[in-house]
Amino acid sequence: MTEMTTDGAACAAGTWRPDDLSNPVAVAQALIRLPSVSPDPGESQRLLAAMLEALGFSVTHLPYGEGAERTPNFFARLGTGGPHICYAGHTDVVPPGRVEDWRYPPYEARIADGLLYGRGACDMKGGIAAFVAAVARQVVAGGVPGSISLLITGDEEGPATYGTCKVLEWMQAHDQIPDYCLVGEPTNPRVLGEMVKVGRRGSLNAQIVVEGTQGHVAYPHRADNPVHRLLAVLEALRATPLDHGTQYFEPSSLQVTSIDIGNDATNVIPARAQARLNIRFNDLHTGASLIGWIETLCRQHAPRSTVTATISGESFLTQPGRETRALVSAIQQVTGLEPALDTGGGTSDARFIAQYCPVSEFGLVGASIHKVDEHASVDDLEKLTSIYETFLREVCA
Amino acid sequence: MTEMTTDGAACAAGTWRPDDLSNPVAVAQALIRLPSVSPDPGESQRLLAAMLEALGFSVTHLPYGEGAERTPNFFARLGTGGPHICYAGHTDVVPPGRVEDWRYPPYEARIADGLLYGRGACDMKGGIAAFVAAVARQVVAGGVPGSISLLITGDEEGPATYGTCKVLEWMQAHDQIPDYCLVGEPTNPRVLGEMVKVGRRGSLNAQIVVEGTQGHVAYPHRADNPVHRLLAVLEALRATPLDHGTQYFEPSSLQVTSIDIGNDATNVIPARAQARLNIRFNDLHTGASLIGWIETLCRQHAPRSTVTATISGESFLTQPGRETRALVSAIQQVTGLEPALDTGGGTSDARFIAQYCPVSEFGLVGASIHKVDEHASVDDLEKLTSIYETFLREVCA
Repeated sequence: MTEMTTDGAACAAGTWRPDDLSNPVAVAQALIRLPSVSPDPGESQRLLAAMLEALGFSVTHLPYGEGAERTPNFFARLGTGGPHICYAGHTDVVPPGRVEDWRYPPYEARIADGLLYGRGACDMKGGIAAFVAAVARQVVAGGVPGSISLLITGDEEGPATYGTCKVLEWMQAHDQIPDYCLVGEPTNPRVLGEMVKVGRRGSLNAQIVVEGTQGHVAYPHRADNPVHRLLAVLEALRATPLDHGTQYFEPSSLQVTSIDIGNDATNVIPARAQARLNIRFNDLHTGASLIGWIETLCRQHAPRSTVTATISGESFLTQPGRETRALVSAIQQVTGLEPALDTGGGTSDARFIAQYCPVSEFGLVGASIHKVDEHASVDDLEKLTSIYETFLREVCA
Repeated sequence: MTEMTTDGAACAAGTWRPDDLSNPVAVAQALIRLPSVSPDPGESQRLLAAMLEALGFSVTHLPYGEGAERTPNFFARLGTGGPHICYAGHTDVVPPGRVEDWRYPPYEARIADGLLYGRGACDMKGGIAAFVAAVARQVVAGGVPGSISLLITGDEEGPATYGTCKVLEWMQAHDQIPDYCLVGEPTNPRVLGEMVKVGRRGSLNAQIVVEGTQGHVAYPHRADNPVHRLLAVLEALRATPLDHGTQYFEPSSLQVTSIDIGNDATNVIPARAQARLNIRFNDLHTGASLIGWIETLCRQHAPRSTVTATISGESFLTQPGRETRALVSAIQQVTGLEPALDTGGGTSDARFIAQYCPVSEFGLVGASIHKVDEHASVDDLEKLTSIYETFLREVCA
């Protein structure tokens, strides 16, 4: 495998021409054949940078972090005119798991029955390949309107500490914040064209520890059962829905993920009880407002308690405007489908980008991501290329 | 210590006369000086049997169990007339803990400032000594009215598998079930005379295991959170009080003692959740009725759940009758106090006896039981002897 991928990289860096890059399947195969489990060791990214340079992009490599955390990233820009449209993505992939469980080796990029198999085929080397091909077709046809950039990180699947956040700081400092950013993550649950993400819910993790007073179960009045206090807090947290959703967001959701007391004695009221919960919240809340709410209920039902909370990400929404309408129009023209403007699912690097500019997300079908036999339809790669190409043309028109 | 206790046993078995046995303090000291951590190895019980034989009792030794579980017990009876009043007690004691923590060595039976210190001083060698002295005084005065027996076990503080239950079966088989049984456990919280127990609550332990469907917290609709189902079950169990108590019983009490899920991942809805609870219940319920109630609520809120329950003891009540009134009268005459007829606290061997005959419980003050520096007031030992003596006279009058 190693020999093959090295060959691929050597070949690619030297020989890709704009015409070759117009084929999204060939580009995706070349990227898949360079294994790049998070954080990407860099070879996969260097190939992508070489491809973009072949199209005329100016590439700035922006590695951050030290030692095991060192993360390769780059910013590439073609043209200086407006509007400035940025495409954000990542070259790192999640581990393949047991290689023997795969129908075809995860880094072979085999095409079978119209499907391209391989780790990263849809998350998200296939998406990146479609965007590269879309730009290549415009370059071949005479050039791009406005200007195009790519924000590429090698650590989206990992802690993401030295990836997109750091590149955005650099872009800010170098006056490279775009007018609009399109993240190429796989957004379609089943069929290409059914879903654009225009925001994401926030995510909050909280741990509640309730102190009580230990005692014998036969004399509960001499004890203070922390389990009952914790149950009262959790009941209060679950009693009223946080909200009923908004135009683009489903209702916020609270899930208690663990309760741990560890009291083995059947006749003893324990001294302490703890629970953990996660809240996925929409734009009616902030992490801080939810922490305040949890703390208030804890004070009411369990005065001797502590709340420890971590905000993984605040919610954000890009109110659909001209660029999002252009994206929807491109999807309709290519697929005939009216995509839903959605904000569900997990978090993505779009949460960082939203702090700088409007952002939406559209890519391949995500059904097989992070699984064995990850694959993208060859037909979808072609269609996605057309969608990106149409979008770029419409948004710059 | 061993030498001293052996001396005491040798001396006692040969030399106790009814006059000596009329002194409850001397009898209690002799019993305390024979260590008998549960299950009583037997020496303490043999001394007690010898004392009773010196008073004219006919003693039948009834050891049950094999090996480490072998438990010495005996049944002793004096007279054949009616009414037949039985006194039930145990010669085994709980471990002393760190001997250095005691003011006086736990098996020395030291008297200081009017208090007799030692393991078993009130639970319940002191109580047994008071009963022995009460009978001895009647024997010295010319004999007992009716007939008197003692049901003595060496494993009340342990599993109690080969103790009172087995002796009761033997008594049943040998036509020795009494008209009334008085258990000599320490029943008074603070002052001698304040409380007689006329029943006990039942105790039930249940474990509830709820199966769910694991999933990502961002997609709760694709999972089935067993924690939320378990919380709904526990909320339903706690929502309505089981009852509001009865004439002799306080309200039944349910305590959730542990919830254990053990899910370390903040973004995962776990596959399974479990809780444990204990119910102390009065005579409005049975163990079976409560298990049925728990199972019904589990079916409603968590169809994929299992309930595993153990009934440690059913509740029981001896409706106060002639014998209990005689006991209350004796307490009033000696202490001037009107004892409460109570059913609170933990369980005792009375729960087994209640299946055969009316039973109540009255003994010393229990404040220091199972603790370091366990002690009984010398004055209380004298008073308790007078109470038992008066009770026997009144109940047989």
